[in-house]
Amino acid sequence: MVMKCNSFPGKLNRGLSVIDSYKLLKEGQELTKEEIFLASALGWCIEWLQAYFLVLDDIMDNSHTRRDQPCWFRVPKVGLIAVNDGILLHNHIPRILKKHFRGKAYYVDLLDLFNEVEFQTASGQMIDLITTLEGEKDLSKYTLSLHRRIVQYKTAYYSFYLPVACALLMAGENLDNHIDVKNILVQMGIYFQVQDDYLDCFGDPKTIGKIGTDIEDFKCSWLVVKALEHCNEEQKKLLYEHYGKADPASVAKVKVLYNELNLQGIFLEYENESYEKLVTSIEAHPSKSVQAVLKAFLAKIYKRQK
Amino acid sequence: MVMKCNSFPGKLNRGLSVIDSYKLLKEGQELTKEEIFLASALGWCIEWLQAYFLVLDDIMDNSHTRRDQPCWFRVPKVGLIAVNDGILLHNHIPRILKKHFRGKAYYVDLLDLFNEVEFQTASGQMIDLITTLEGEKDLSKYTLSLHRRIVQYKTAYYSFYLPVACALLMAGENLDNHIDVKNILVQMGIYFQVQDDYLDCFGDPKTIGKIGTDIEDFKCSWLVVKALEHCNEEQKKLLYEHYGKADPASVAKVKVLYNELNLQGIFLEYENESYEKLVTSIEAHPSKSVQAVLKAFLAKIYKRQK
Repeated sequence: MVMKCNSFPGKLNRGLSVIDSYKLLKEGQELTKEEIFLASALGWCIEWLQAYFLVLDDIMDNSHTRRDQPCWFRVPKVGLIAVNDGILLHNHIPRILKKHFRGKAYYVDLLDLFNEVEFQTASGQMIDLITTLEGEKDLSKYTLSLHRRIVQYKTAYYSFYLPVACALLMAGENLDNHIDVKNILVQMGIYFQVQDDYLDCFGDPKTIGKIGTDIEDFKCSWLVVKALEHCNEEQKKLLYEHYGKADPASVAKVKVLYNELNLQGIFLEYENESYEKLVTSIEAHPSKSVQAVLKAFLAKIYKRQK
Repeated sequence: MVMKCNSFPGKLNRGLSVIDSYKLLKEGQELTKEEIFLASALGWCIEWLQAYFLVLDDIMDNSHTRRDQPCWFRVPKVGLIAVNDGILLHNHIPRILKKHFRGKAYYVDLLDLFNEVEFQTASGQMIDLITTLEGEKDLSKYTLSLHRRIVQYKTAYYSFYLPVACALLMAGENLDNHIDVKNILVQMGIYFQVQDDYLDCFGDPKTIGKIGTDIEDFKCSWLVVKALEHCNEEQKKLLYEHYGKADPASVAKVKVLYNELNLQGIFLEYENESYEKLVTSIEAHPSKSVQAVLKAFLAKIYKRQK
């Protein structure tokens, strides 16, 4: 039950990209049944890692719904037992790894990888939590470098680097030789999160499947960071007064300001620039198959509307 | 801060017993500085595991104090961020292991060991939580086998088996050859928890440092299990009516019943029997140094008053 409610109906993007990436690394060779099975097992490890984080994040954020259902901790009789359920979801990872990879040369690297990425994600979550702490609200802290740090640690490592790193290990690669791949994927993860912040305000709620509340929630969004960068003193005063308030009139004022500052245009420019930079970095990589993996990832997110 | 508040002032018994056990396995040979350092590092891993569990258990049990201080989640500005702090405490384990044991032949066994014991403990916590679930209170579920299952998984593996298993790995042993050691330590852990249940009701609050509330909390204590085993129909009715109520008159009635049923005498008999059995099992072990480790553990807890 805890497994069913917390992974379905997710999109399983992260898990599936282990298989896609591994295929590309094998340059179109037909995968054996065992290879497909193992890549899928690693994909599931990533999905359980995500489920674990989401169950616990929802508790900490006091959220109401997740994937159109009540958050797990809001299900009757679950409550804070959900904390332990989160831990049990996480325990799937070492159990799956031990069951299916114990004899592989890269087993210990898989354990190290998942442990490291988990630590990075929890560190990102910590920075995020202490930044948006009730009673400590302070817009002057919201800079591009803080935004970058939060999204890099909280999202980029586990969503972008981890699936590719799993595929690289399965392909017999040493991750120490792929720092450049890690850096490119982290950049891509940051770009992905900037899109997320943008869509929260400017996306079509029908398409993205939720109504954004970053402004109400005083989130350290890329939009507010850019607004602070471009505003004059008067506009700054307005932001300080109305950002983070649930009142619809305050939210509307912030949105008007975002339009005045042409944040849509600034985002478009950012998106094009990021894309160009990423393509350049990818094409500088010596391996064509690694390039293919990275380009496939980029194609999935470039100009996305949801 | 999160580290300081959640490990000090613990007694560090579990951590220290890695060093004690390793010394005994080395049969009195002087330990090198490196050996002491490594055994201490493993001891700290166990302490962080414990801190992680306690921080999260306190949230799930809605507890008020821990080690004479407010629970971490009750500290102002912490709140449910404590969930993430718990995760960060846990992350210390793989980080310490990687930093100091990455090159050791037994590194992967250490990772597997900690992962397995964490899973066992979380499983025990799950059984405990769903057994004492508000609104599902049902004394008829409280049997010796349920009690045993909870304490074996929730306490015995991490408190008794884990420190010795760490010492065995450091000494170059293969844990698969020490299933008998594991079984003895699990038995000892169960005996330890029965003592705990006994002291909660019959111990001196000044000596044990807290006022027991197992009766009020509807805990699946060894005492209530034994009471249910030995009571007549009338006494059973009294237990069903008064067990798990906060009202002091109800608690007093349960205590009177415990005395009528001579639970102190039944405990004494259990204690002597457990001790004899444990000594017999220990002396059947082929290795004198392993015997010494197990006897040292037993000596620490036999007839303990706190």
